[in-house]
Amino acid sequence: MQASTSPWRLRTSAASPFGRKVYMAIVAQGLEDRVTVIGADTADPGDALRRQNPLGKIPVLLVDGLPPLFDSRVIIEFLAGQNGTSTLIPAGAEKFIALRDQALADGVMDASVLMVYERRFRPEGFAVASWLDYQADKVERALAAFESEPPSLAESGPGIGAITLVAALLYLDLRFEGAWRTRHPGLQAWLEAFAARYPAVYAAKPQLS
Amino acid sequence: MQASTSPWRLRTSAASPFGRKVYMAIVAQGLEDRVTVIGADTADPGDALRRQNPLGKIPVLLVDGLPPLFDSRVIIEFLAGQNGTSTLIPAGAEKFIALRDQALADGVMDASVLMVYERRFRPEGFAVASWLDYQADKVERALAAFESEPPSLAESGPGIGAITLVAALLYLDLRFEGAWRTRHPGLQAWLEAFAARYPAVYAAKPQLS
Repeated sequence: MQASTSPWRLRTSAASPFGRKVYMAIVAQGLEDRVTVIGADTADPGDALRRQNPLGKIPVLLVDGLPPLFDSRVIIEFLAGQNGTSTLIPAGAEKFIALRDQALADGVMDASVLMVYERRFRPEGFAVASWLDYQADKVERALAAFESEPPSLAESGPGIGAITLVAALLYLDLRFEGAWRTRHPGLQAWLEAFAARYPAVYAAKPQLS
Repeated sequence: MQASTSPWRLRTSAASPFGRKVYMAIVAQGLEDRVTVIGADTADPGDALRRQNPLGKIPVLLVDGLPPLFDSRVIIEFLAGQNGTSTLIPAGAEKFIALRDQALADGVMDASVLMVYERRFRPEGFAVASWLDYQADKVERALAAFESEPPSLAESGPGIGAITLVAALLYLDLRFEGAWRTRHPGLQAWLEAFAARYPAVYAAKPQLS
């Protein structure tokens, strides 16, 4: 067994925003040929996922010689150390801006997923408006902060703050009909600039095999 | 203004498991004299917290010359780079074990907080048993995984996986009456070994000023 050339396996679903973020980072690093994407069902107790990640959450990256890597930030940390120098996590003063932006956009995804789950995991009539508002307010404040100070779009490649924000915005498109776009035109322009500068990363979406 | 000697300010609450984790890491790094702890009320729209972290979540570390640092993992990354070499995030092959363990114990705290919120943020009668079970199962699977493969207790100091697990277990003591202890005697022994080996870190708890 040659650990160094074995394919990596990414466990995710097609719609997971955290899975999309990781896959965008894989493409940004030029590593897509090393990765096989394998679907995972977080609702299925028999899915090997719960052995790979006891939390039963996606994504998980399986790399020979390492423990199953999760969650998405740990996978990103691994990816940033591959293929020599990386723009994913910049060095120096920019590092904590990128990591903070990643945490902020992760928070947008967390709050949005909780809003989706408020319908999915509860019987009719059990959704609580004040809880939904509490999560929606987090999303709105975070988007406003990103609108006034968007992640940089460096010539050399996207950082993890920018990638995570893209994944978050595209998830809002998917689940909330892109209502953010009319409220945040500056962010919409930023997203278009990202797509123009890094078209392959923007288009990257895990295809389940 | 001398940025390098200004005190850092940690915004947290007394009960936050993520705040306790960060404060334990501060003590593990011998940095407690640099930090002033300032309370934060996540429910108060007027608290400066929502400007410091648009998600309105704690903890946040304020350091002159850097953007407000959040969430806890970003703060840990910053702390690990202070005071020279660090055992918080080990180098080499141990790094991804420590980061994975941190993510797993963070997941225990996330699921536990959601269970607490299920009562706190909903009217009487709106808690959903299947959702509570779904979160409790995550906690149980994660604790079972930790029981069979606990974080190492190195001579040189605790890693972030071990610190985060301690914070998670002490939060389960606080909110769920330590029911985990009878189910996971091996983990209880591990917690006692942590306390014996790193008494100052074990006892570390943010005192609000």
